[in-house]
Amino acid sequence: MTPKIARFLTQHQPATPCLVLDVDRVEENFRALRDALPLARIYYAVKANPARQVLRRLVGLSSHFDAAGIEEVEACLDAGALPSAISFGNTIKKVSAIQRAHRAGVTMFAFDSREELEKLARNAPGARVYCRILVENAGADWPLSRKFGTTIESARELMLLAGDMGLDPFGLSFHVGSQQTTTQAYELAIGKVAMLFTDLTNAGVNLRMMNLGGGFPTRYRDEVPEIDRFGDAIMNAMTAHFGNNLPDMAIEPGRYIVGDAGLVQAEVVLVSQRDKNDPVRWVYLDIGRFGGLAETEGESIRYRIKTSHDGSATGPVAIAGPTCDGADILYEKSNYRLPLALTSGDRVELLAAGAYVTTYCSTGFNGFAPLAEHYV
Amino acid sequence: MTPKIARFLTQHQPATPCLVLDVDRVEENFRALRDALPLARIYYAVKANPARQVLRRLVGLSSHFDAAGIEEVEACLDAGALPSAISFGNTIKKVSAIQRAHRAGVTMFAFDSREELEKLARNAPGARVYCRILVENAGADWPLSRKFGTTIESARELMLLAGDMGLDPFGLSFHVGSQQTTTQAYELAIGKVAMLFTDLTNAGVNLRMMNLGGGFPTRYRDEVPEIDRFGDAIMNAMTAHFGNNLPDMAIEPGRYIVGDAGLVQAEVVLVSQRDKNDPVRWVYLDIGRFGGLAETEGESIRYRIKTSHDGSATGPVAIAGPTCDGADILYEKSNYRLPLALTSGDRVELLAAGAYVTTYCSTGFNGFAPLAEHYV
Repeated sequence: MTPKIARFLTQHQPATPCLVLDVDRVEENFRALRDALPLARIYYAVKANPARQVLRRLVGLSSHFDAAGIEEVEACLDAGALPSAISFGNTIKKVSAIQRAHRAGVTMFAFDSREELEKLARNAPGARVYCRILVENAGADWPLSRKFGTTIESARELMLLAGDMGLDPFGLSFHVGSQQTTTQAYELAIGKVAMLFTDLTNAGVNLRMMNLGGGFPTRYRDEVPEIDRFGDAIMNAMTAHFGNNLPDMAIEPGRYIVGDAGLVQAEVVLVSQRDKNDPVRWVYLDIGRFGGLAETEGESIRYRIKTSHDGSATGPVAIAGPTCDGADILYEKSNYRLPLALTSGDRVELLAAGAYVTTYCSTGFNGFAPLAEHYV
Repeated sequence: MTPKIARFLTQHQPATPCLVLDVDRVEENFRALRDALPLARIYYAVKANPARQVLRRLVGLSSHFDAAGIEEVEACLDAGALPSAISFGNTIKKVSAIQRAHRAGVTMFAFDSREELEKLARNAPGARVYCRILVENAGADWPLSRKFGTTIESARELMLLAGDMGLDPFGLSFHVGSQQTTTQAYELAIGKVAMLFTDLTNAGVNLRMMNLGGGFPTRYRDEVPEIDRFGDAIMNAMTAHFGNNLPDMAIEPGRYIVGDAGLVQAEVVLVSQRDKNDPVRWVYLDIGRFGGLAETEGESIRYRIKTSHDGSATGPVAIAGPTCDGADILYEKSNYRLPLALTSGDRVELLAAGAYVTTYCSTGFNGFAPLAEHYV
């Protein structure tokens, strides 16, 4: 918790649940990542937190932006980003979204299928396109599955085709999965994609960019490697493959930039021991999987939880949200422990919850209002 | 698809994705359920679809209401429901929510723990309370897990205590899980809970209500038993236990009332064969798990999908949503097949999607706007 957030909570006692995010920390994280990878251009993954305050601060730092949808493109433009600083990174785009982005001056688009390439050729002629390659997501707490990316063979074919279709075959991309906790995932992916890069260059394609995706982790309950280690591993892998002749490098951090800049303050609604013979207490918060903590699905993202009783005796707990939905359980199997003194009405903080909470939350499931947001 | 919905779609060509719901069908379903269980009082589970048009129609039919949160209580009152027709059915309630409901005249509350009972005694003195018992959820497509309900032993203790605390120990409840496809689940649960009911009555507690919960299924991809079969099974089980001396019966249908009254119309954003050696095409829609189809988590609820190419040759597909989230996959393992002619820009309908879509959807993940709603 940053001093500014602590002060805000003390002075304002905001209604819970709410996100409180320190925009200065966003800047610190941006600078730390730039220091760790000075040769890479940072495209902030807007979906992690599209708040205007975050976007404006990043515009001031000359960040680039990775937009997942046309509304995110427009939010970046509204916040002062230049169209040339925006990459439309979703490989699945409506024709109308491509047209709107193209009209707005966006010139860089992702794709991973022939069908999408054809849509781009028709609706954003001349655009710089980059093809997403499917790579291993081992080591990621929030892997990206088979939904995105194509094979090396298919990517090669499509990139050769792109030029014939009047597009600019600009680069290749991959994504090692979100909250990626091993540097090796990047090394392996770079090795795979760099070979195709060289192969296509030799075939006469004027490739200029390697987009290394995002995935850089935030520290939740478990330790993660420092960002410098990712920077070193990536640069070593890139120079091993390209030597002095490095292509442009792009990265798409989201979680790393905003994750630990924010916390969610919540209220304990109920603590109950469901079975006298079971020491596990059930702790129900006023926020759950449908109120913003969607990434607790499968107990994937395990937030650290701070209480005012920290330091006193603890016992095992299951933690659940406030809705009538049986799926609205945050942690039942992750061996959480909370103070025995914890009781209904207490406030708790879920730390490093600045990413993927505000826009994931439901519009009003069980009548609960969307998560309130405070930027300090 | 009802004729009114078909007409609306033809005449208005609404922007997708959207829910279109025929309120007349809501009334038909309400009447069918009332006919199947004439002795049961229907508490509509507002969380299934809290639209004002639905609530007002049901108020006109003298329905009662099961509210999961204080905002739902207030939505019912706004729609014209009497406070006496509202049950605050969430066993996990903030003190402030209990106070607001009590002040609004609501007199019936659920609980399943001593802590919640104490909150009710302090903040809604004199209220009618009912205790939720944990029962088996086998046979349910959307089971409710260990999150709710207590044991017979604990319920007995708490109901005896309720009177001493100045509350009215009104009844017992259970829930067999949502989209429950077997009548046996109700029979088993009634058997278990009715024994406690009789036991408590013999102990001098003035119990008057058995709340049988919801769970009544809508027909999705697979057939489900007719509602009359549930009605018969429930009445047989109730009379087997209580004879002529039946307590008040309450049921809390949500999905059954609104499910098949609505459909979601979506647009195909992309069809791509990700691997030449794999016949599975990936079909990306403009709605996914974060846009309202949350119940496709784990492929639990399997919607029927209608296309304009129906009747032509089909092939295997995986179906995914439009966001950059790898978890945003609807069906990968459920052996869906869709027409080979299906292509980007086509409209499709997800049938019987009137329940649990509008309020589950995210406020703006990846920038996508919440699901549009049309009531006809």
